[in-house]
Amino acid sequence: MAEYNFTEIAQKAKKASKELLNISAEIKNKALLQIAQNLDLNRDKIFEANKLDLENAKVSLQNGELTQSVFNRLKLDENKLRDMIQGIIDIYELEDPIGKILLQRTLDTGLILTKKSCPIGVLGVIFEARPDVISQISALAIKSSNAVILKGGKESKNTNIAIMEIIQDALASVEVFPRNVLTQVFTREDVAEMLKQDKYIDLIIPRGGNKLVRFVKENTSIPVLGHADGICHIFVDESADFNKAKNIIVDAKTQYPSACNSVETLLIHEKFAQKEELLKELQNAGIELIFTPESWHKEYSDKILAVKTANSLEEAIEHINEFSSGHTDSIITESIENAEIFMNSVDSAGVYHNVSTRFADGFRYGFGAEVGISTNKTHARGPVGLEGLTIYKYTLQGHGDIVKDYVEGKKHFNHKDLVAKG
Amino acid sequence: MAEYNFTEIAQKAKKASKELLNISAEIKNKALLQIAQNLDLNRDKIFEANKLDLENAKVSLQNGELTQSVFNRLKLDENKLRDMIQGIIDIYELEDPIGKILLQRTLDTGLILTKKSCPIGVLGVIFEARPDVISQISALAIKSSNAVILKGGKESKNTNIAIMEIIQDALASVEVFPRNVLTQVFTREDVAEMLKQDKYIDLIIPRGGNKLVRFVKENTSIPVLGHADGICHIFVDESADFNKAKNIIVDAKTQYPSACNSVETLLIHEKFAQKEELLKELQNAGIELIFTPESWHKEYSDKILAVKTANSLEEAIEHINEFSSGHTDSIITESIENAEIFMNSVDSAGVYHNVSTRFADGFRYGFGAEVGISTNKTHARGPVGLEGLTIYKYTLQGHGDIVKDYVEGKKHFNHKDLVAKG
Repeated sequence: MAEYNFTEIAQKAKKASKELLNISAEIKNKALLQIAQNLDLNRDKIFEANKLDLENAKVSLQNGELTQSVFNRLKLDENKLRDMIQGIIDIYELEDPIGKILLQRTLDTGLILTKKSCPIGVLGVIFEARPDVISQISALAIKSSNAVILKGGKESKNTNIAIMEIIQDALASVEVFPRNVLTQVFTREDVAEMLKQDKYIDLIIPRGGNKLVRFVKENTSIPVLGHADGICHIFVDESADFNKAKNIIVDAKTQYPSACNSVETLLIHEKFAQKEELLKELQNAGIELIFTPESWHKEYSDKILAVKTANSLEEAIEHINEFSSGHTDSIITESIENAEIFMNSVDSAGVYHNVSTRFADGFRYGFGAEVGISTNKTHARGPVGLEGLTIYKYTLQGHGDIVKDYVEGKKHFNHKDLVAKG
Repeated sequence: MAEYNFTEIAQKAKKASKELLNISAEIKNKALLQIAQNLDLNRDKIFEANKLDLENAKVSLQNGELTQSVFNRLKLDENKLRDMIQGIIDIYELEDPIGKILLQRTLDTGLILTKKSCPIGVLGVIFEARPDVISQISALAIKSSNAVILKGGKESKNTNIAIMEIIQDALASVEVFPRNVLTQVFTREDVAEMLKQDKYIDLIIPRGGNKLVRFVKENTSIPVLGHADGICHIFVDESADFNKAKNIIVDAKTQYPSACNSVETLLIHEKFAQKEELLKELQNAGIELIFTPESWHKEYSDKILAVKTANSLEEAIEHINEFSSGHTDSIITESIENAEIFMNSVDSAGVYHNVSTRFADGFRYGFGAEVGISTNKTHARGPVGLEGLTIYKYTLQGHGDIVKDYVEGKKHFNHKDLVAKG
């Protein structure tokens, strides 16, 4: 069905990624402003395309092939479009992440080593039917000098095509901006193809459900950035303050139940005195409580909360390290010491003290934009900002220096840091 | 054949990795010193075991099952053992890589976000028959608070067992040091098992030939750190200085031809005037020159060098980006401008100017110890030191803070950096 050859797309993206290496921060910013402006000027075209998607989706909704929440996310209104455009302006305003000197040292007189941030190359991003994502990912890719191949949810195909056309028009109007920096693909087969292109694609970012992320991780040798589950915990310690506990749990469970940073399991210290009162308050807030072990590894994404008693801080930590998805876990305690032990021993991207798990978010952390949230133990962990789309290279500049002189002891290294940011 | 269950080993390693989170830098350093001391005290035991391995290997050598270079690497003499012990002392002396504050900011008054370095968890390291590697990897793992499962080459089995026993004895004598931080496995089946344990193993580091690394990358969903090939290039530009070119190429090809940072392909600008003279000098230095396209993707690991004429700097860059393994590539030129274009456009871990490719090495870079060299585009690239064995987590400390207050506009984020190291 596809009218294009995926390998060709990937090759062209790789070529574009090399061309991007010579594009200045000024040109990238010019392109971002142009995109924001063109999206604003072409609102009608976008809404028209979105209307088409919504009409198709209405049929699927009635057939039961689509859930109401997917349908809601599909809809692009004035507010969402305004946020989309503002999102691009926000990325425009961020500091350029490329060419930062992370380390500079002389290895010997006149022999200078420099560690410098650079783009990763080609990203493959797979996302669900949310038309606001395509402009955000495009802007993040441009700002970080990466080429990107985007595969969006099929339900938002018309909207995505319209938005991408507007973005491409904007890029075409910016002189010297390389072609093929952004490419969109559409089919399920394209996902399978994408996962095979380890010669051309350097990083895959699946933004979607658990099933998608697992499928991607199991079917590619390309590095994957993302999180499959969001099974977050709150542990109410013996010395927890009742009101803090109540407010935090209600916030973490009900403020946005389908978010990945919502709490799924509540652990309560057996010596916490107001346990019954707390549970009652949670029920009053419309939360359904479940007390079976089966619930410990479930992500309800709803106002349902698994509850378990823990005999000790250590038991709570052990439970979390066993069942947490490594996303975000919080302790409610008035004991600084216990909070320290918890934050040190829980092996998750976010470890919180007297705070709602819902804070785990790139914007709230002040990163200005979020690529996604990662539960990886390498490269980038937690909310990932622009920095997660960069890597570094080493330059070494000398005057005919050879290793033989050092091996034979004629010369000696005298490592001296000129810049050391780690 | 194996007298152990791999999953059990992996589970125990995971458990040990959690226990390591509470081990102080002082205890880790105490353990490292004890290991160095015990290795020194037990030299006879090590040499005896090594003798056994060498006797077995001699048979394999005569049968043609083993190459002379593998045999040479297997041999542990007084010098190598002294270097091994010194290597542990060097790691002991390095700054602790864990618990470093990489970023600290208030999100709002009293709501403090901290990004802190922490260990990755459990490493799986596969290496060839080099008995000096086992102590080095063990020391790096301890210093970085990671547990590690080690699989060494079968030819050095007796030596590895002896060394590991000595290391384990040393650890057992250090109070509170967790068990199972280091485990050794032995069979080819163990490698296959290791690659499956994505629940317990967080990073695989294959240190060995091209075939091993490719096999590992294609057969695991665990992140892999390493490099398959070392196809390094030197480009002699139009304005290259003849003597620099000659000395650098001879060094990069002959100083240690089987090293991964040795040059494999020489590109010469067609307008470089002393081309014939240069090639003659290389032949005089015992280098065999090959002029066929088949040679462009070969890693000879010998005094053999592919040679190609490039019509321009751009053509040279394009050739390198096509055929380089992304390890280290160098330009010889007196033009600062061309050097800048080369270093910016060549997409390799190391991009050098007027310097031998042989400098690509953790010790030469001043990292103090090297985990290996990575051609990855994520996590760690180039020579990887201790930092490559760490990741980070975010702690967030507050006083009952909830997201609802910010969503409803009752409170506002006022991101202020307290510490910003990037």
